[in-house]
Amino acid sequence: MDVLQEVRKPVLDSYFERSAVTRNHMSCAALDCEPKQNCVAFMSAISRAMSKFRLAVIQLQVTGVKRDNLSRAQRLVREAAGQGSKVVLLPECFNSPYGTSFFSMYAERIPGESTQVLSEAAKENQVYLVGGSIPEEDGGKLYNSCTVFGPDGDLILKHRKIHLFDIDVPGKIRFQESETLSPGNSLSMFETPFCKVGVGICYDMRFAELAQLYSRQDCQLLVYPGAFNMTTGPAHWELLQRARALDNQVYVATASPARDETASYVAWGHSTVVNPWGEVISKAGAEEAVIYADIDLQYLDDIRQQIPITTQRRNDLYAVTQAQEGSR
Amino acid sequence: MDVLQEVRKPVLDSYFERSAVTRNHMSCAALDCEPKQNCVAFMSAISRAMSKFRLAVIQLQVTGVKRDNLSRAQRLVREAAGQGSKVVLLPECFNSPYGTSFFSMYAERIPGESTQVLSEAAKENQVYLVGGSIPEEDGGKLYNSCTVFGPDGDLILKHRKIHLFDIDVPGKIRFQESETLSPGNSLSMFETPFCKVGVGICYDMRFAELAQLYSRQDCQLLVYPGAFNMTTGPAHWELLQRARALDNQVYVATASPARDETASYVAWGHSTVVNPWGEVISKAGAEEAVIYADIDLQYLDDIRQQIPITTQRRNDLYAVTQAQEGSR
Repeated sequence: MDVLQEVRKPVLDSYFERSAVTRNHMSCAALDCEPKQNCVAFMSAISRAMSKFRLAVIQLQVTGVKRDNLSRAQRLVREAAGQGSKVVLLPECFNSPYGTSFFSMYAERIPGESTQVLSEAAKENQVYLVGGSIPEEDGGKLYNSCTVFGPDGDLILKHRKIHLFDIDVPGKIRFQESETLSPGNSLSMFETPFCKVGVGICYDMRFAELAQLYSRQDCQLLVYPGAFNMTTGPAHWELLQRARALDNQVYVATASPARDETASYVAWGHSTVVNPWGEVISKAGAEEAVIYADIDLQYLDDIRQQIPITTQRRNDLYAVTQAQEGSR
Repeated sequence: MDVLQEVRKPVLDSYFERSAVTRNHMSCAALDCEPKQNCVAFMSAISRAMSKFRLAVIQLQVTGVKRDNLSRAQRLVREAAGQGSKVVLLPECFNSPYGTSFFSMYAERIPGESTQVLSEAAKENQVYLVGGSIPEEDGGKLYNSCTVFGPDGDLILKHRKIHLFDIDVPGKIRFQESETLSPGNSLSMFETPFCKVGVGICYDMRFAELAQLYSRQDCQLLVYPGAFNMTTGPAHWELLQRARALDNQVYVATASPARDETASYVAWGHSTVVNPWGEVISKAGAEEAVIYADIDLQYLDDIRQQIPITTQRRNDLYAVTQAQEGSR
């Protein structure tokens, strides 16, 4: 059993535990051999099968009507699952317009209306659903929060945006999330049977340390629901994703709302998936769309063999370290 | 006196100490006022003047004849200085062909023939000369070493490539620097009257931590003499530079040898300068060329005001830290 399988075994085990199909049954079917617990050939076959999966990114057209946003999201998750997607990603603020004046108006507690829809969509379609983000209300504070649901409909992660979007490019774009939102204080990763996934929201992507820590903790896919604008979008959206992917040799996926020229905040769109070689392998335009990418973890391993920066880092000279849980 | 001037003052002081022009004399001439030591208006005027400088990157055609390489470099440094350049950058392995079979053949001690030429060129042209790199022999070991000379011809820095270039992309490129070279064990920064500069060599650029530490230690320009090849060049050369520049909001400059299709190792060329917004502001093709970029530290400060990631980092959650001097 190689190192890769060693790493994936606990995840596979937990997958089978929750699956209706037993390990031994799968063993027979897959290999046409007698049932045999912990069979090496079986694990190897499954590991190969698990090394590829389809990711869908939903570039949702977001309106001011929450119910419409939720039902459209529900429909597109179903469409994505119908195309064989195992992990589905929604955009930042997928249930409401993005803007400091809207956050409190649309904010919900978690669990609440929007996360209930996400939970049902994940379960109905048997997918890992990264629910973009919604404005969350908790204890009198507002957060920009991403929830992730497993194929059983359970909430498996909540990520509150760590880095609030406060920028001021004169004559172009001024936005101060911190006027209304509070920041999260934790890194956020979740396991799937395929790979571990790191989560950030939009502006979080500008901070390389987050991606570095996720990849050092074995995430092979980073997802960033985001809503870059018409200034920073063309300048930095793709560059940041390609940088995170290449520097850490991971897959990176972003989901933006579709562009709405009539909105107070106009999103750049261009939801994207980048591979560990730094190449864009799937990209939306400005309109509503579902884009797909086949994530290939064997390819990722190959890249890390070819240009082995993950083992060549000079740990004797520098380190990226995670501090204790944030205290803000 | 603003913070910027506070930071630059010691550097300016040391500049004036080494200069034939006295502070008071300059004060009179620049401001048409009575000589007055530590005059705030004077410092302010000088600081503004110092916030821009011209950088030249020499994409040298390197041959197997060391003497030719040195004299061509000498001529192009003169040309660059004639265009007002204050900092001049030469490529990796500028004095000899790049390749494991050549390193020992062309290796020199430092000081030696090649660094003597660099020292004279820096002094003759009154520039900071980042002397690309040369194969260095020291104590029976070989290094890929970058030397930097000040306008007085003094050696002010030696950087030995920290990350050796060991990659294997099947059917494309296999190269193992570590078969013949030993790695350096130190980060390398130097001061100029304009800004602090961080130095890496080629493959060092793939390791984001180095650039992060340089920028956290106030470098505003990073220089990477490098020689990417025909596989990694088109894929990663520009992306890595833009990533380093954008993530750290610094200027980044690379100098490659010109392309020689007959060489055993064919360099990609495309020496480049990127600004802190992540834009390519100057770029060579494949041929020998000198390219120029006006480095504008006020623009850098503006970018850092507009998208203030340098102050928004979550130091309570993560850190990039420098370990003790390497022990390898």
